[in-house]
Amino acid sequence: MGIAYDGRDFHGWAAQPESMGLRTVQGEMQRVLGHLFGQQVEIQCAGRTDAGVHARGQVAHMDVTVWPEDVDAGRINRALPDDVRVTSIERTSMDFDARFGAIWRRYTYRVNDDPRGPDPLRRHLVLAHHKSLDIAAMNEAARALLGEHDFAPFCKQREFASTIRTLQRLEWARDDDGAAVMTVQADAFCHSMVRALVGVML
Amino acid sequence: MGIAYDGRDFHGWAAQPESMGLRTVQGEMQRVLGHLFGQQVEIQCAGRTDAGVHARGQVAHMDVTVWPEDVDAGRINRALPDDVRVTSIERTSMDFDARFGAIWRRYTYRVNDDPRGPDPLRRHLVLAHHKSLDIAAMNEAARALLGEHDFAPFCKQREFASTIRTLQRLEWARDDDGAAVMTVQADAFCHSMVRALVGVML
Repeated sequence: MGIAYDGRDFHGWAAQPESMGLRTVQGEMQRVLGHLFGQQVEIQCAGRTDAGVHARGQVAHMDVTVWPEDVDAGRINRALPDDVRVTSIERTSMDFDARFGAIWRRYTYRVNDDPRGPDPLRRHLVLAHHKSLDIAAMNEAARALLGEHDFAPFCKQREFASTIRTLQRLEWARDDDGAAVMTVQADAFCHSMVRALVGVML
Repeated sequence: MGIAYDGRDFHGWAAQPESMGLRTVQGEMQRVLGHLFGQQVEIQCAGRTDAGVHARGQVAHMDVTVWPEDVDAGRINRALPDDVRVTSIERTSMDFDARFGAIWRRYTYRVNDDPRGPDPLRRHLVLAHHKSLDIAAMNEAARALLGEHDFAPFCKQREFASTIRTLQRLEWARDDDGAAVMTVQADAFCHSMVRALVGVML
């Protein structure tokens, strides 16, 4: 299942205990799908994004024995709030696992360094930065981070969790609107690693 | 002066009496510029947009005798809220008038007719429509509206105001995201005319 969402009003992907009252993408998806399927469902995604992170191509899966004929992306989306939607649905083999089967995750991070500030219509998609950025210098710095390393300094530590990751791609470029865009791809990311990578390079 | 804004939280362009408590683009601009200039200023735009209308290239002018040296687009934008910004400033002749000097105004209107619904990150930029649109048929209908006509049926009538306008361009196309985009250009528009044109063609 392909999923897109506007992360602004979500406290990240992972469903929280109801008592917390926090809105999450997984929580909304499970609520709507559970209703349409008439039974509780569990949905797993490839990369559990943090609060405020948007998605265009989040991949998730769900193990179900029967898929009701009248449930398609259109019907699910009409039941979902408009800041999250299903972009595609595909039947696959039961051993497919969006989380443990993913061989890479890719994120982009946009930074506006135009002294006039970001385009008002795109301001929630970019970080406003007041110093002009040197794309070539940042790409130079990025090269040193490629490959397999212990990214502990870039991660919010979680006990017993490995912080060794393989960075497959890390590069900066300008988009059509002039924003500096970091594209980063790794076998997996640890908590808040993308933000930390951006942070050290700015 | 070029201006861009996200129209969602504005009650249109035109400043309202303070007692109304309505936030408008002209109101915000005049508040910030008045503060930076140390005197009340009046700013006139080429097309007074309605509530909820966004702008990428609104043109406005202001008659001032002296322009303080330290006031540039960056400084104005830091004082403005982040849903409106000045994209350019140019000194011109005193007889330039953004409103009465404009020879055309152009608007685009985006309609998403994908049954899966709009991209969550662009949902505030498009109208969600549940029926699939026939671009060729809409362009056929659009041709009949071109030229000088009395557009009274498309306008919220205002007493004594002419509703005769010259439609210079009116066409539909698909954008990169698959949305149907109407581009419309006229010497001028009357109140709510763009929305009415979209309405009859859907």
